[in-house]
Amino acid sequence: MDIYEKSLALHKKLKGKISTELKAEIKDKDDLSLLYSPGVASPCLEIKNNPDMAYEYTIKNNTVAIISDGSAVLGLGNIGGLASIPVMEGKAALLKSFAGINSFPICLDTQDDEEIIRTIRNIAPVFGGINLEDINAPRCFYIEESLQDLGIPVYHDDQHGTAIVVLAGLINATKLLNKNKDITILVNGLGSAGIAITKLLVEYGFHKFKLCDKVGLIYSGELHKNDLPTLVSKIENSKNNKIDSLENAICNTDVFIGVSAADILSIDMVKSMNDKPIVFALANPNPEISYENALQANVGVFATGRSDYPNQVNNVLVFPGLFKGALAIRAKALNKEMMLAAANALANIVKDDELTNNYVIPSPFNDKVCDAVTNAIKKEGIKTGVNQI
Amino acid sequence: MDIYEKSLALHKKLKGKISTELKAEIKDKDDLSLLYSPGVASPCLEIKNNPDMAYEYTIKNNTVAIISDGSAVLGLGNIGGLASIPVMEGKAALLKSFAGINSFPICLDTQDDEEIIRTIRNIAPVFGGINLEDINAPRCFYIEESLQDLGIPVYHDDQHGTAIVVLAGLINATKLLNKNKDITILVNGLGSAGIAITKLLVEYGFHKFKLCDKVGLIYSGELHKNDLPTLVSKIENSKNNKIDSLENAICNTDVFIGVSAADILSIDMVKSMNDKPIVFALANPNPEISYENALQANVGVFATGRSDYPNQVNNVLVFPGLFKGALAIRAKALNKEMMLAAANALANIVKDDELTNNYVIPSPFNDKVCDAVTNAIKKEGIKTGVNQI
Repeated sequence: MDIYEKSLALHKKLKGKISTELKAEIKDKDDLSLLYSPGVASPCLEIKNNPDMAYEYTIKNNTVAIISDGSAVLGLGNIGGLASIPVMEGKAALLKSFAGINSFPICLDTQDDEEIIRTIRNIAPVFGGINLEDINAPRCFYIEESLQDLGIPVYHDDQHGTAIVVLAGLINATKLLNKNKDITILVNGLGSAGIAITKLLVEYGFHKFKLCDKVGLIYSGELHKNDLPTLVSKIENSKNNKIDSLENAICNTDVFIGVSAADILSIDMVKSMNDKPIVFALANPNPEISYENALQANVGVFATGRSDYPNQVNNVLVFPGLFKGALAIRAKALNKEMMLAAANALANIVKDDELTNNYVIPSPFNDKVCDAVTNAIKKEGIKTGVNQI
Repeated sequence: MDIYEKSLALHKKLKGKISTELKAEIKDKDDLSLLYSPGVASPCLEIKNNPDMAYEYTIKNNTVAIISDGSAVLGLGNIGGLASIPVMEGKAALLKSFAGINSFPICLDTQDDEEIIRTIRNIAPVFGGINLEDINAPRCFYIEESLQDLGIPVYHDDQHGTAIVVLAGLINATKLLNKNKDITILVNGLGSAGIAITKLLVEYGFHKFKLCDKVGLIYSGELHKNDLPTLVSKIENSKNNKIDSLENAICNTDVFIGVSAADILSIDMVKSMNDKPIVFALANPNPEISYENALQANVGVFATGRSDYPNQVNNVLVFPGLFKGALAIRAKALNKEMMLAAANALANIVKDDELTNNYVIPSPFNDKVCDAVTNAIKKEGIKTGVNQI
């Protein structure tokens, strides 16, 4: 059996990767009276009098919703909410496994933006955070932004999770290869991840960019923080205005970040980059260029989304610790400063004397990862004042 | 500490009465590949090709949403969705404890009917059933009815759970006291439970009714199945048209069913009923007449919502087995026939030679209850063709 057949058999056997379980037994009338009627009236009234008490008496303090409309499911495209349940359950399982956080998959039967926004507002009370997942671009930007006043963190993992891991890897790769913030970065693929990566790299201080979409190069030049608020609409408007081919655009760049499609990068294209190029070939399951071909092209640092090669860009490095930290301080929101702090914390797990071409990003199973991200999020959240405790 | 203080302390300690837990460990890269990317693509595609496969590969097969807008929370009134979380978590805990069903509390930040209906439709895919809870009348009727085409059971427990237990108790009480279906039944309190009780008793075959609201008697006469579709609007239109007082109306009735308010029934009023009257005084936490006063009035059978007196009318006798049965046959909906079957099954748990004034309703902790209701629901669901397997 290949991995897909094995996975199908396992899913059939499990019939669900998570379950809801009791935190206290209900074995007699006394338990019923305390956990349900009539005793339950007292926490209800406490919350009615002070809404913050929901964090003290309910699962809100440690529970996140995993919400998707299934419009951009990893490698599968728009399969809808129902068919996305196994992914969202998986995400819920990861949150529990890596950070001890309760979460529940909410798979939507609508792909109407306003309807999604209203639905999330309506079901928010029981959750301490919202993880948006697998919603396609540019809708994901609008939906996420519209919900930033909800009073709990609303975080689109495909954007920020990927961006944070890429930045962490790039911090370490540039350190290893002695490159500075003036290098030229080509981002290929301008969906949710590509745009979020670009934005976070700009926030960090990189400023020379080439942005490519399916048609080829659509933007080349400087990008600074004041360009970010209009970046999405700028890119959307330019999507069919090819100004050059990818093949020409990649010449003399230092970094290639692909969130695009399998095998679109040739050995010669990598060879046309500057010395010791950094290539993050993140298309799943097959990268823009194989590990073997990248080595042949004398790549400086190579990363993929795959677990069977070095330097895996995997969002599970981020979202468990990020929500753990946010819940710990009851963050009202997540801001760029917290995301930069998470990227730095993740980068710092690899010590200077451990850094090699094959080790710029720690493993998801490195047990320092979750704590490092949690602490960075807590510290920066308090510093930027989004904490409620 | 009284029960309310104890309950508050316990809720503070637990910080949530349920948690989400893993059904399979994620301890290495292989587990990640099978339970998440890339393996998870295979169950997603199976479901995309055949939506029924969601029951085979995900938690949908054994998961129920507990949904409330907090508009009519047990004894507390309209406290809103957030403050109702402890009740909905409690309900989720009961579903797990009594029937092994996963469930998750969805506490709504809206009390707009259309918004609630749309929200429930939008989040339905991951659930195998919807338990509506603590939504006030007459809104609850409209909301529940509007969702009957959802393809999964949508069940308002305050209505049907209470009605099923009351009917079960009444079946046994009339058997014990040799009363037939021609007896006169007074229902006092015409909220969600009162109306649902009336409807189910009519479905069963009782037909002589007196219906009272706060103002007094508003309907007296025959009720048959063909009256049911318009019963709610008939009652809503009559709510201020008092035709007599409760005190006069109760004379020469056989059954008093109160879902109203504490202490509104005097000893003399019960004495004015027919011989060996049946009194279900279900106001919570204090019944319409106390157990002691009811005995003084020579009541035939007396039931309350309380666990410290005999014959407790507790919905936990119904909803765990009801959802377990419905999920087992992947019921598209729950119908009246299934509810009548559940009531009969519940009544039959008390054997003829066990029947006494103090034992017409089994205890929630009687371990035959859940299976009996489950089996009745399965059998009647298949008979009436709402099953999908």
